[in-house]
Amino acid sequence: MTDGGDRRRFLLASLGLAGVGAAGPATSSQTAGGSTEVPQWTRRQGAPVLAEAYGVPSPFEAGVVRHRRSRSALPGAGSSTTPLQDLHGIVTPNGLHFERHHAGVPAIDPARHRLLVHGLVERPLVFRMEDLLRLPSVSRMHFIECSGNSSWAEPAPGSTAGDIHGLISCCEWTGPLLSTVLAETGVGEQACWVLAEGADAAALTRSIPIGKAMDDAILAYAQNGERLRPEQGYPLRLVLPGFEGNMSVKWLRRLKLGDQPFQTREETSKYTDLMPDGTARQFTFVMEAKSVITFPSGGQRLGDRGFYEISGLAWSGRGRITRVEVSTDGGASWSDAVLQTPVLSKCLTRFRAPWRWDGATAQLACRATDETGYVQPFREALVAARGVNSGYHYNGVQSWSVALDGTVSHAP
Amino acid sequence: MTDGGDRRRFLLASLGLAGVGAAGPATSSQTAGGSTEVPQWTRRQGAPVLAEAYGVPSPFEAGVVRHRRSRSALPGAGSSTTPLQDLHGIVTPNGLHFERHHAGVPAIDPARHRLLVHGLVERPLVFRMEDLLRLPSVSRMHFIECSGNSSWAEPAPGSTAGDIHGLISCCEWTGPLLSTVLAETGVGEQACWVLAEGADAAALTRSIPIGKAMDDAILAYAQNGERLRPEQGYPLRLVLPGFEGNMSVKWLRRLKLGDQPFQTREETSKYTDLMPDGTARQFTFVMEAKSVITFPSGGQRLGDRGFYEISGLAWSGRGRITRVEVSTDGGASWSDAVLQTPVLSKCLTRFRAPWRWDGATAQLACRATDETGYVQPFREALVAARGVNSGYHYNGVQSWSVALDGTVSHAP
Repeated sequence: MTDGGDRRRFLLASLGLAGVGAAGPATSSQTAGGSTEVPQWTRRQGAPVLAEAYGVPSPFEAGVVRHRRSRSALPGAGSSTTPLQDLHGIVTPNGLHFERHHAGVPAIDPARHRLLVHGLVERPLVFRMEDLLRLPSVSRMHFIECSGNSSWAEPAPGSTAGDIHGLISCCEWTGPLLSTVLAETGVGEQACWVLAEGADAAALTRSIPIGKAMDDAILAYAQNGERLRPEQGYPLRLVLPGFEGNMSVKWLRRLKLGDQPFQTREETSKYTDLMPDGTARQFTFVMEAKSVITFPSGGQRLGDRGFYEISGLAWSGRGRITRVEVSTDGGASWSDAVLQTPVLSKCLTRFRAPWRWDGATAQLACRATDETGYVQPFREALVAARGVNSGYHYNGVQSWSVALDGTVSHAP
Repeated sequence: MTDGGDRRRFLLASLGLAGVGAAGPATSSQTAGGSTEVPQWTRRQGAPVLAEAYGVPSPFEAGVVRHRRSRSALPGAGSSTTPLQDLHGIVTPNGLHFERHHAGVPAIDPARHRLLVHGLVERPLVFRMEDLLRLPSVSRMHFIECSGNSSWAEPAPGSTAGDIHGLISCCEWTGPLLSTVLAETGVGEQACWVLAEGADAAALTRSIPIGKAMDDAILAYAQNGERLRPEQGYPLRLVLPGFEGNMSVKWLRRLKLGDQPFQTREETSKYTDLMPDGTARQFTFVMEAKSVITFPSGGQRLGDRGFYEISGLAWSGRGRITRVEVSTDGGASWSDAVLQTPVLSKCLTRFRAPWRWDGATAQLACRATDETGYVQPFREALVAARGVNSGYHYNGVQSWSVALDGTVSHAP
């Protein structure tokens, strides 16, 4: 970190940008190559207004898509990642929100979809989508992260930030709070847990503590302004801010209140953390603080030496990010990054740090601290505490190596 | 406004939701119609993971698209609106961002695009996209509104909220501040204005005060996380928060600093406000405070009487929204709506207000106040001050009528 931000000019001086002497006429420009040609796209009418249509990205961005992360014998079981290395800011466009399905994406007619709320309630009820849309709603920016995100195992050579960490996305979710719906049904005195069930072929089910249900859980019908995408639970998704992603049950069709956890497949056989002594940690709901540098990151290549802005994302399932530290020398020294405001709770936070690359090899790393004081751990501390048997809840500090030729790759 | 929020239960009691007695098994549900059938989409595997692809909305949302607002003899000249009545929260998905083009959408190769900065600068420079991407950037949520949004003329029968007010959208924009780029070139002592020119076939040009350029202007290369959409200026757009939309020049290729405004076509013949005395107001940059109820709104129809949440959007080009008042009785009485947080500067603000429809006719209206104390005016005050010759900068209070059958339409 050789540029503290006080040097506000000539950040790009080392690039040798082409200086231009005289002001050109309004219809010409001078390119870095010295051309004074008016570009071809200024010489002819452009494409028509795209009315009565839904817009799509530029053909020049065709490579910015979700990438397959895992697959099984069933084409509907697997996951795809958000290309974090290609994104900016904190919003994930809906078309790039990561996927993790257990039995594919159902095609649900919203007019026929129902939500049943029953069990230890005063008044069991069935809600149509039009009922839920009438209730008082909230819109809140939250990340959703798969508990299998990031990697206990060594990433494959050539892995990008998205390959390693892309089972996380961040949207503005809209819908009634679950507490609003439970106020309609009433909550029995013995009710301590809520079973949430999806309408997919896996009928994915998870148990949720009543405290979370009554706190900030959302019955989301919209993401980033529009109705949910099919692969995000259309027409209705439970969103549990900060909790592991599979608990934010998609295609939500049923909530059953009970006096104990329901011990479903996805919280016993799966989504527990196998410890070194052979026991399993169960009910590890919260996604702890993590951070990742998205630029420069794996698969990218720096050009000329000189100024670059290091940029990345930090988040915590416990609340707000309060600090992100960045190192460019393999952890020997750390500097505070600037956090993009507003810093929101259980939401991605973009951080930025100035850096001047001197052309030598470098090792870049970041670590996040949240409002509870929790500091993202190094891998060694995580492995010492939890071993390497688990596939979930890995949030160790991860580093990128910059080679002499500017190529960037995961640092083992 | 007959429900102040203190009555937290049985908001939907009047709907007569089907009560259900016994807890059903995990694979069955009971619909409002009494069916215990497992839905067809739970009985079979869903669609595969959509890896290596960019996601699209549900087929059931095929009607949620931009709609044509104006056209000319040239297919590339015209506009399309954001369907505000179909959206939630404050983010506009990129595929639904409104359009206003003067000569169509150019297909620009980002590798060949250049930004020339010249005129009264110390060091004229040409920037490639890769240069701009290296500079320190910001990501900020801002609305962009066409100065021709909303209507001095009476809206056509059947107009929706989007038809009338949909030339506004709101995204998270990312890029270097213009002040960062001007720090690279230096700003001459006599420089008071900046000419911004687009690379479209219209070579759209506007003059921008140097104070705005050095304040919060962004050279945006991304919107809502991903690179700009072609129709929003790919690969580079000037974003002038709070100023009329055409000044946020798309496909930005040139900035020329000068000591006076450049008096271009789009700030003399167009985008001035013709006053009753035949003179024209020139340089009316700021979009003043406005608000619109998006639910219930034109073209929608209420079902049963009972509880509904009124919801809408408010914004101001001068900063933050501090208050939105809602009336359900044609302006006889007003109540404060709840503002969704965080309330951001020069950004859409979602507001919500509870309402119990008694089945009678009603007239719904809203009015916004911003942090400067400015209150959105009624039409009469606007017309008295500025006449009806102008097509721009209309921000009068607008009302929706609810008929006995629940249909909603613009209230003349």
